[in-house]
Amino acid sequence: MLIRLTSFFCLLVLAACGQEGATDGQPAPEAPVYFEPGAVAAAEGLRDSALEGSGAWTLLESLTTEIGPRMAGSENDARAVQWAIAKFHELGYDKVWTEPVQLDGWRRIEAGAAILAPYPHDMAVTSLGHSTSTPADGIEAEIVHFETLEALEAAAPDAAEGKIVFISNRMDRARDGSGYGPAVRARSGGASEAVRHGALALIIRSIGTDNHRVPHTGMMRYQEDTPKIPAAAISNPDADILVNVLARGEPVHVRLTLINEDLGPIQTANVIGEITGRETPDEVVVIGAHLDSWDLGTGAIDDGAGIAITMAAGRMIGGLTQRPRRSIRVIAFGAEETGLHGGRAYAARHQDELSGHVMAVESDFGAGRIYALAPKVAPNARPVMAEIAGILSPLGIELDKVEGRAGPDIGAMARKGVAVASLRQDGTKYFDLHHTADDTLDKVNPADLDQNVAAYAAFAYLAAEYEGRFDQYPTDEEAVTTSE
Amino acid sequence: MLIRLTSFFCLLVLAACGQEGATDGQPAPEAPVYFEPGAVAAAEGLRDSALEGSGAWTLLESLTTEIGPRMAGSENDARAVQWAIAKFHELGYDKVWTEPVQLDGWRRIEAGAAILAPYPHDMAVTSLGHSTSTPADGIEAEIVHFETLEALEAAAPDAAEGKIVFISNRMDRARDGSGYGPAVRARSGGASEAVRHGALALIIRSIGTDNHRVPHTGMMRYQEDTPKIPAAAISNPDADILVNVLARGEPVHVRLTLINEDLGPIQTANVIGEITGRETPDEVVVIGAHLDSWDLGTGAIDDGAGIAITMAAGRMIGGLTQRPRRSIRVIAFGAEETGLHGGRAYAARHQDELSGHVMAVESDFGAGRIYALAPKVAPNARPVMAEIAGILSPLGIELDKVEGRAGPDIGAMARKGVAVASLRQDGTKYFDLHHTADDTLDKVNPADLDQNVAAYAAFAYLAAEYEGRFDQYPTDEEAVTTSE
Repeated sequence: MLIRLTSFFCLLVLAACGQEGATDGQPAPEAPVYFEPGAVAAAEGLRDSALEGSGAWTLLESLTTEIGPRMAGSENDARAVQWAIAKFHELGYDKVWTEPVQLDGWRRIEAGAAILAPYPHDMAVTSLGHSTSTPADGIEAEIVHFETLEALEAAAPDAAEGKIVFISNRMDRARDGSGYGPAVRARSGGASEAVRHGALALIIRSIGTDNHRVPHTGMMRYQEDTPKIPAAAISNPDADILVNVLARGEPVHVRLTLINEDLGPIQTANVIGEITGRETPDEVVVIGAHLDSWDLGTGAIDDGAGIAITMAAGRMIGGLTQRPRRSIRVIAFGAEETGLHGGRAYAARHQDELSGHVMAVESDFGAGRIYALAPKVAPNARPVMAEIAGILSPLGIELDKVEGRAGPDIGAMARKGVAVASLRQDGTKYFDLHHTADDTLDKVNPADLDQNVAAYAAFAYLAAEYEGRFDQYPTDEEAVTTSE
Repeated sequence: MLIRLTSFFCLLVLAACGQEGATDGQPAPEAPVYFEPGAVAAAEGLRDSALEGSGAWTLLESLTTEIGPRMAGSENDARAVQWAIAKFHELGYDKVWTEPVQLDGWRRIEAGAAILAPYPHDMAVTSLGHSTSTPADGIEAEIVHFETLEALEAAAPDAAEGKIVFISNRMDRARDGSGYGPAVRARSGGASEAVRHGALALIIRSIGTDNHRVPHTGMMRYQEDTPKIPAAAISNPDADILVNVLARGEPVHVRLTLINEDLGPIQTANVIGEITGRETPDEVVVIGAHLDSWDLGTGAIDDGAGIAITMAAGRMIGGLTQRPRRSIRVIAFGAEETGLHGGRAYAARHQDELSGHVMAVESDFGAGRIYALAPKVAPNARPVMAEIAGILSPLGIELDKVEGRAGPDIGAMARKGVAVASLRQDGTKYFDLHHTADDTLDKVNPADLDQNVAAYAAFAYLAAEYEGRFDQYPTDEEAVTTSE
């Protein structure tokens, strides 16, 4: 009990001193004050044994080999749900169940694009998610080129009349993926903006940082007050070629053929595995990732890695000699890519229990190493987070000065007040692969995957073992997604 | 005349002393002895001004944008020939002409492959060059897996009866491309070996060092005593997936559809631009590259880069205040990829004049920086080469201890005794792109391209200005190709 009282005293003192000096950028305290020595030892054990082989690689190899692409609502998605149920059972989770998730299905059938004149080139192209189709023999039209969505927005109402709009904005590479947000607007909103200017179709430069002949798909949305036109992304090298052809100053004619199918309402599932807490099982720490993927690659980094990391972390905690105080819930969210349906369904279904959800963390940024713990918690919980960061520090993880954000699937619960944290990963190469055929297992480093598991297992365990709360200040702020 | 006598004296002395001590690995002499100060100054001027902008990038951008893929015998190949003629004229070459090259045409129409069971996966696949077709609805059969061509060769005569052979050998990365030779045997000879064991078709892991979803094509040859079966390469990530599926130990069924067309005899051309020598115009220094490319990419590194480097180097020499003693012939060889037809046609057509071809160098290894001059010359010409290497040394180029080899297109003339040299390039990344859709302009660094031009221009100029011979000892050795 001495330790408990000391912890409580320190919490008060540190909270009174303000969070800044006590936490941000400072070395962790030498002796933990918020956790009992046994809990610290257990967390360190999870951390260190994960590095020796967490089993995450085997899970990811299984998912990408035996299932592969698993577009929400597809046959492979249904197989992935069964896979996740079976794996949770195999891994010794205490409870395994599914919860329904509704979505509107869509599938890609065919895509082709070519520059016809003045210099013929075939282009590597893919439909954006939920794009309508062109006629079966495609659309042939002149290209009108805008370097950014903003330039299109500023153009005359008839600037694209009878033409295909091409937006060539280029995404910047960054460790934290911060180039994605500014660039992705062309994908999300380009089609409805283009049609306002009279366009027949939209082609964008892929939202990605690579230079391979593999286009990046991803969601787009039609605004309700505008007609729907077909929308596609060409690979970055193809965008370069098209820009170079356009630079000659002659009219550039393109043929674009996109055949897709709306499948109407479909049901998939969130798959949940729980390690049930020994003292307060109704208090829950959520670690999650999304089970669905786009259809072009095998979804190794987006988000098979997150599934493997969180499943393996939960398994390791379940393998301890005793359960943590609180429950750990590993949620394999359904239908993230096509609209965050799983995350929203979970928050809606459990809205009356979310006060018992003390912490949620999501892994949806590939398999790069984690370099920072960035909590979004109440000020008086930051010192606890600093102590956890200290326990994670041998993994190369620091407490981030910048507050964390909810990942896409935990965004809905975060908006209802659930405390969240980001375990920030190195995403320098993430957008080379994101939403492409290149998202395959060979891009994942097993040791990096284990480092992620080490962090998730130790973090989730400590959050489940800690007796206090982390609740963030209430907010209506929209969660920022980096993955959808 | 003093200088000339000194040079001649030194040549005798150095030759008498043997080449080893005087050249390999030694710093270049401070004061050149084989070249007049004016020639050295001119070479240094070419070298240094190329680094400030050689014009090669503009040529390469033009070729890849305005022509793009240019498979030998195709319409685009014919356009490329016209492009080369026009560029040689624009660049101020003294003489420009073409010489006919015959080839058997072939074109790719369609390719598809999928694992059907036990775990369905679509695969990125392409026909190997000159492969026959499958039936229109493909071949469905079980896979029989061999890790190497050697393992297939050693297998029982019925080891592949009624099956599709999959050879999964993996190419090693190396600066000098030395991983290619051992790996490429599976591509060249796999189909005829597979059919000897009863196979219906051949699938190989791509001969390449990348991990992108873009398969590598390239030539294969059917032996005359065996039936022809369809042959394809899957991308390296797909090969990994197939290996992982096979590792489950269950029968793996695949569908392979390859539709190709033999086009029969077609004519294309070598395009030649000459800077005519001021003293002995019938003595020729050849710098060459191949104009054709495979059909999947725009042939930026294979071999647009070589075309741009050699054309720009010749232009720079033509821009000097006086012509070198000998002629410089820049040869844009036709139909290299499908059988070295241009190189063979040139050597055959000019066989009676090859004694006047004093040196030939070929650029066919991408746009990586040159790190070594590796001549294959008579022993008494090595000190001259050492002196040239000294002039190239500010470019980061050393005289190589290992003797050079003829590139693929100059192989035929080398076998008739023409002295050759290799300007060895860093090919570490070359086989990431080689023969894929990813061979596009964005992979080329303009400064690296200029460094290549600097070396080619200075080298070709000095070889054309030098009054002695470089003739290599006669050999029947087959030239080793790294590009076909």
